[in-house]
Amino acid sequence: MAKGSETREVILKAALDFSSKLGLESLSIGELAKKVGMSKSGLFGHFNSKEKLQMMVIDYAAQNFTDNVFIPAFKKERGIPRILAIAENWHKWSGKYFTGGCPFVAAAFEYDDRPGPVRDHIMGHQTTMLKSFEKAAKIAVLEGHFYTGLDCKSFAFEFYSFMLGYHLYSRLLKDEEAKVRHNDALESLILRSRKV
Amino acid sequence: MAKGSETREVILKAALDFSSKLGLESLSIGELAKKVGMSKSGLFGHFNSKEKLQMMVIDYAAQNFTDNVFIPAFKKERGIPRILAIAENWHKWSGKYFTGGCPFVAAAFEYDDRPGPVRDHIMGHQTTMLKSFEKAAKIAVLEGHFYTGLDCKSFAFEFYSFMLGYHLYSRLLKDEEAKVRHNDALESLILRSRKV
Repeated sequence: MAKGSETREVILKAALDFSSKLGLESLSIGELAKKVGMSKSGLFGHFNSKEKLQMMVIDYAAQNFTDNVFIPAFKKERGIPRILAIAENWHKWSGKYFTGGCPFVAAAFEYDDRPGPVRDHIMGHQTTMLKSFEKAAKIAVLEGHFYTGLDCKSFAFEFYSFMLGYHLYSRLLKDEEAKVRHNDALESLILRSRKV
Repeated sequence: MAKGSETREVILKAALDFSSKLGLESLSIGELAKKVGMSKSGLFGHFNSKEKLQMMVIDYAAQNFTDNVFIPAFKKERGIPRILAIAENWHKWSGKYFTGGCPFVAAAFEYDDRPGPVRDHIMGHQTTMLKSFEKAAKIAVLEGHFYTGLDCKSFAFEFYSFMLGYHLYSRLLKDEEAKVRHNDALESLILRSRKV
């Protein structure tokens, strides 16, 4: 039992690394089997179908995001410190854990026009994540850090947009100022949301 | 001569539509040939290689962007009206011309971890576009619309980040408020940049 779940972890880790670089759609069972030293049929035994594997890779990435971005941020004080921690942890997470950058950003743009269960699965996770950003802003209002009446949905839109911009500047453009640009934009967003 | 360039236009249009939906990497010469009613070898005669075709599709999209987004915006007054026109034209362009949304946004995230000439080609076009946004902000400073000392590179970062956010909200999440969120964020950016 323990061995089975360990094997699955090894497969999912390799699959996530692969798909963060080349996309979930390019995920090849054959190449993945080679990478983890298994037969194709042995690997298939764990997932049944490519689609199932793709969805499990997404769940695995989401769990990883929760463990490394949200959970440590929840240990910070409620309000602005927690919001800044989410951004900081996300920077570390997308840069260190994956050679191909944030797997969600990649998957979101890859699947926006590929209808089906994989797309719906990504959409569900992204919606949950955006609701968490919105909730973090609502808590900052309750704590008196942000002003009453702040549009927390718009806050979440800007917060995530800047992450997308950061991803494009740092990964496609290899812009050395990507982090500075992102921090400036985020600082301005926090400042504008503050209670005066 | 005229017929050759017309055929090429037909091929590029079909290729761009295909790749805005399923990605440039999935572009199949065979499927494309079927779509435009040509033989594979006839189609190859126009482009020589898949990589060449991919790069020409990017150039074709860039020309289309210039014609439909930048050129009509240049007819507007310098400064804020021109910046707002760029955003408005981009909305129309990405929504109307392509069933798969903005082909550049899709290509930028598809190729960020695929080194090679196609990636470099996309990177070149994206850098040029961001420089144009930066220049539009500089003109707004010169016109006295934006304050002196505005960081025009940060302006370009935010301007493009909001477009990326809009794309994700409207295409992946099918969020009906995508345009409202984008307009609110853009309005706030313009307001913050204004000369007081």
